[in-house]
Amino acid sequence: MNQVPARPLTERREAALERLRLNSTLWLATASHARGPYLTPLFYRWDGSRLTTATFEGSRTVKNVRGQAKVRAAIGSPDDVLMIDARATIAPVADMADIAEVAKWYALVSDNDPQSVPGFVYIHLLPERIQLWKGVADFTGRTVMRAGVWLEDPTG
Amino acid sequence: MNQVPARPLTERREAALERLRLNSTLWLATASHARGPYLTPLFYRWDGSRLTTATFEGSRTVKNVRGQAKVRAAIGSPDDVLMIDARATIAPVADMADIAEVAKWYALVSDNDPQSVPGFVYIHLLPERIQLWKGVADFTGRTVMRAGVWLEDPTG
Repeated sequence: MNQVPARPLTERREAALERLRLNSTLWLATASHARGPYLTPLFYRWDGSRLTTATFEGSRTVKNVRGQAKVRAAIGSPDDVLMIDARATIAPVADMADIAEVAKWYALVSDNDPQSVPGFVYIHLLPERIQLWKGVADFTGRTVMRAGVWLEDPTG
Repeated sequence: MNQVPARPLTERREAALERLRLNSTLWLATASHARGPYLTPLFYRWDGSRLTTATFEGSRTVKNVRGQAKVRAAIGSPDDVLMIDARATIAPVADMADIAEVAKWYALVSDNDPQSVPGFVYIHLLPERIQLWKGVADFTGRTVMRAGVWLEDPTG
């Protein structure tokens, strides 16, 4: 069978970083004991070490994160997946300076000025594991970060 | 402000049905009490009333579904979302006749013949609520199915 070989780690790590930098939306999966899983699309920003997204204090996403900090986020399409297992923490918008970014995220759910809306909060996602794969041929070696550390090529 | 009006219910319901029929991949969010949310891309087939997907018996997805039947699935992109709250049930592949479909789904995670792999199971997703929206302007009136029933246009 003529298979496309899985990408080497260095190339895959670069692709993961590029995706984190250039994309602006993710799917965020959170969960609560009572109501089970929740999934929602959100804007995010990557600062080189964590992703920051924002939504309403009263949303199921924020309630879930307060009860269960483990979350899982996907960036891309089912054919070309960047999957992130992360720890989530909540921070008030008032603690952040960059209102322009807030406005961009906020546009996903409302056309109001975010500064006029009480209870809008940031969710910081600190990645613990990052995996990247394009279908089955690329599945082996898909992990580029483990325990919060970017993996190094053992042969490099 | 010049806003694109939200789509009427009839148009949106048609768009939801077309998306279900024409797309073949979804993001499936499941959860367990101990490990929190899980998210994975899967192939699916829509038969007019439910979605059927398939994966390994030993996967976190199947383990989660056995403990918590409530799941949430997304089809599309964060800019053009079809969101499905569903009840999931598990069925052995041996109970199903259509091996060609199994092979297609199976290709996502393996290049083996699915019939040679023990413990591959179907997950049926019975939608309880379906929502469809393209960004904020389209957010109002996004629900096209509630309590398992396709909504009718009250003015129709």
